[in-house]
Formats: sequence, C-alpha cells, structure tokens
Amino acid sequence: MADAEIAAIRAMLAARPRPADLGERRKRLDALWGAGDLPPGAEITPVSANGVRAEWGSTPGADASRVLLYLHGGGYIAGSLTSHRITVAEAGRLAGMRTLALDYRLAPEEPFPAPVEDAVAGYRFLLDQGIAPGRIALGGDSAGGGLAIATLLALKAEKLPMPGAGWVISPWVDLENSGDSMVTRAEADPMVQKIYLDETARAYLNGADPRDPLASPLHGDLSGLPPLLIQVGAAETLLDDSIRLAQRAGAADVAVTLEVWPEMIHVWHLFHPQLAAGRHALAGAGRFLRETLAG
Amino acid sequence: MADAEIAAIRAMLAARPRPADLGERRKRLDALWGAGDLPPGAEITPVSANGVRAEWGSTPGADASRVLLYLHGGGYIAGSLTSHRITVAEAGRLAGMRTLALDYRLAPEEPFPAPVEDAVAGYRFLLDQGIAPGRIALGGDSAGGGLAIATLLALKAEKLPMPGAGWVISPWVDLENSGDSMVTRAEADPMVQKIYLDETARAYLNGADPRDPLASPLHGDLSGLPPLLIQVGAAETLLDDSIRLAQRAGAADVAVTLEVWPEMIHVWHLFHPQLAAGRHALAGAGRFLRETLAG
Repeated sequence: MADAEIAAIRAMLAARPRPADLGERRKRLDALWGAGDLPPGAEITPVSANGVRAEWGSTPGADASRVLLYLHGGGYIAGSLTSHRITVAEAGRLAGMRTLALDYRLAPEEPFPAPVEDAVAGYRFLLDQGIAPGRIALGGDSAGGGLAIATLLALKAEKLPMPGAGWVISPWVDLENSGDSMVTRAEADPMVQKIYLDETARAYLNGADPRDPLASPLHGDLSGLPPLLIQVGAAETLLDDSIRLAQRAGAADVAVTLEVWPEMIHVWHLFHPQLAAGRHALAGAGRFLRETLAG
Repeated sequence: MADAEIAAIRAMLAARPRPADLGERRKRLDALWGAGDLPPGAEITPVSANGVRAEWGSTPGADASRVLLYLHGGGYIAGSLTSHRITVAEAGRLAGMRTLALDYRLAPEEPFPAPVEDAVAGYRFLLDQGIAPGRIALGGDSAGGGLAIATLLALKAEKLPMPGAGWVISPWVDLENSGDSMVTRAEADPMVQKIYLDETARAYLNGADPRDPLASPLHGDLSGLPPLLIQVGAAETLLDDSIRLAQRAGAADVAVTLEVWPEMIHVWHLFHPQLAAGRHALAGAGRFLRETLAG
C-alpha cells in the first residue's frame, strides 16, 4: 500500500536537510517548491494590496468574481510568493477562481502581529475592489493555515463580513506545540519537529502570549467562522493541530470537513508535480471551494 | 443562522420523551422514523443472510454489483429494519447501489458479541453471493456505526478481505462514554445523554470489558481499514467519539473524512424527509461511496 511517490520525496528531503542559517532556509523553500512550470495560460500580476506586496493569479476560464486569498507557510519566518506560486496557481485553476497571494511580513524582522495585520489589509483590499465577501475564500498552509484562521478571528473582531469559505492545509494553530502528535508522529514526520516549531514560535511571538488567539487560533472563539476544509497528512507532528481545530470549530457550530491523508507529509500539496496525492488533494479543495462559495 | 427545520424536530422530540419500558422504546423508534414513503420505485426483499434476518433494497438504476451493508442504530437494544428502512433506501438511491440492511440480534436478550457475529455473517453472505469486497461498503449509525467499525476489526482478525469503504453517522465507539462532549454538549443534545448510554452499555456488554475493541472499536488497531466517512452533528454528546475515531484512524494511516454539521443532532439523517441538512448529508455520503468504491 506504500505510496512510491511520497517515498521518493522523503528520500529527496533526507538528502537536503534544513540549513541553520535563516537566509539559506528561505532560499531552500524557494528552490524546493518554486521550480517548475505554472499551469498553461496562467497569468501572474504583481500588485500592492493595501500596501502589502502581493500578486494576482489567474488561469483560463477562472471566474473573476471569485478570489482565493492565499497565505503561504514557512513558520512565519520563511516562505514567499516564489515558493508557493505554482501551487497557488494550480489551486486557483482547480477551484476555477482568481488568486491573490500575499507576501505578508516575516519574523524575526517583523514579528506577531504584523502578518495578521497584513492579511486583514489584503482582505480589505479585496472588499475595496468590489469582491463580494461570500465569493472570497481564505486559504493557507502550515503557519499560513494558522494565520488564515487567526485572520478570520481578526475579521470577526473588526466586524468585517466573513469570507465564504476557509481552506487550510496542515495548519499550525497551537504555538505551544502541545499536541500529542508532536511526540507520537515525530518519527514519521520528515519535515517538522517540535524543536524547530518551538524555536520558530519564539521568533514569531517575540514575547507575546503563545495563547493569544491571533497567534494560536485554537484558543479563540471560533463561532461564526465560514465553512472550513482542513486537510492534513497522517505522517505529521502537526496532525493533532488539525484534529483539535476540527473539534473546537465543530463544537462552535462551524461547518467542518477534516480530511486525514494516509502517509502524507506536511503540506504535501506543494509536491503535487511529483505526487498524485497532492494533485488529488488540490482537486478536492477546488471542488470544496466551487461548491461552498456564494454563486 | 438557526435552522428552522431542526428547531421543529427538537420541539417534536421534546413532546415525545423516551419511554422507560424497552418494548415502548422499540416501538417509538419505528414510529419516529419508520413512517413515510420509500423512494419512488424502491423494492424491498426479505432475505436470510447466512441465518441473519435481513432485507435487500434497490432503487431504479442502482448498480447491482455494489452493495451497502447497513447496520441500524438504537443503542444495541432498539432500532430495526422498520425504523431505518426509508433512510437506508434513500442512502442506496443516492449512492446508486443496492442495500442489505441487517436485523442483527439485540440486547439485553442477545448481548455482545452477538451483533458483531451477525454483521460478520452478513458480510460473508455478500462475499458468498459473489459481490467483490471492493464493491461493498459497510455503513451504520450510532450503535450501528460503532458496530460497523467493530465489524471491520473482526473482518481483519478473521483475515477476510476488507470492504471498499466505511460510512458511519454519529458513531458510538467508546462504551465507557468518556468523551469530553458527554458533558460539554449535554445541554445541546436533545436525544442522547450519558446516563442513557451508560445504562445501554451495561445491557449490551453484559459483563464484558468496555474496552474490548469489538465493543469499543476506538481501542482497536485501526490500521488497514478502508477509507472512512464520519458524519456527526455539532449538537451531540457523541461528538468526541467521532473526533477521536478520526484522530486514531487517521494516525493509523486510514483515509479519513470527518464532517461536523452545525446545529445537527444525533443521526439527523433519519429526519431527512423534514430536514434539508439530512438530505444533503445523505447525498454527500452517496457521492463518497460512488467515488470510493472500486469501479
């Protein structure tokens, strides 16, 4: 039953360990996922979204009135428009909608709550463009997935209209890293270990309370959030972040769909050019967004 | 945002409390869900499935080579072919497949493990009929959902081929009733309270260990199970049974989809003639089965 494609990706990752230097780390993510081809006919256009560096993405036939606002992962210290460009474009193609990818500020240079502020600014930019909130989806992976949920809490606090859907991949929603799977899945996970998350959380929080709901949205009042799709791999130390998010959002009367994908590693979607399970997960998310957003 | 249909069902349930007498309880479930019309053209045919009373169901256009083996709920002490006939027929129609509903033995007359033995016998009956295991789905609700997961464990122990999919609604998988939601959702849940589940578990177990995986499959080794769809309502004391089942099955590399439905009560599908959310949940399950079973 073993997935040969994920095995090959594991071997590649083992041969390219995470560098200690932050600049090298950032370059590594761009190299890991940023190479390769955009979907045929994809158009990428830089834009300033309320002062936040961003880029529009569109593929042929995309519904211009629907937008996926996307927040990349990378532990709040890395990741970029470059690292996630191909995956965001493919997600937009499969969802049949435009994308707006945000280059939110990163720690340690710009710690919490700068990324939340940038994400809210990006959302306001879409509203200012006349996009109906029910036709906006907020998406993100890893730290960007946690940021997406935190942003929904910030929008609620600011009494802004909610977007029509949320889609998070392997979200990091507990910056205390207290999930059981931090231990039980440690051997299975080739990408994310607690020691790395603890270090990254310190850099991001910069002294802020790790239980602040805008940093660890697991601790927020999740009522009133739009329908959520949560996708997570079985081979992740962050598995229990997704389980607990599903539990708490569900108990708060949010419509939750949680998918646990066997054998898959942290944000496996990013490897979709080499991984059928990544393509299938993106296609499932595309269907969810098409069916959930306002018509 | 309140669902007026579920509010009307809550009012109806409040006006018809659960009787103390077991015979009356059984009649009540038949009356609650057994009235109404079968889908147009549905054909129901009684059959002995390896000695277990059962009935085939089919609707026009159903693929005769695919079968949903269905285990009704009712706390292992109630529920029947009658109480669940309309819902099983509708599920089969939406999944485009035949159904085989099992009238497994009930406690206290026939306690654990009689229902597990009957469910395994029913599965063997389908194999004996020449149905390919990958074209069989095992489904059930409440106690029948727990029984479905327990049956998968029993099939694995007997080295029988796994069915192609599992579908459980509000499953009861922990007969110790230890989930947090037994307390946190008690006020929200109009149907199932811990005191009732404790009493029912005693009747079913008849002295057996409540942590026996064939009684409480949450404690079993869930590896090797087929893809599972778990559907649960947010207004359920059993919410955490579904959450924990998703967590443990996912961590065991089972493909899991968990859906938490806002405002919905225990096995809301049974109210589908009066409840759009019940029809939507059945339709989603039908799609899952069509897409997951072997072609």
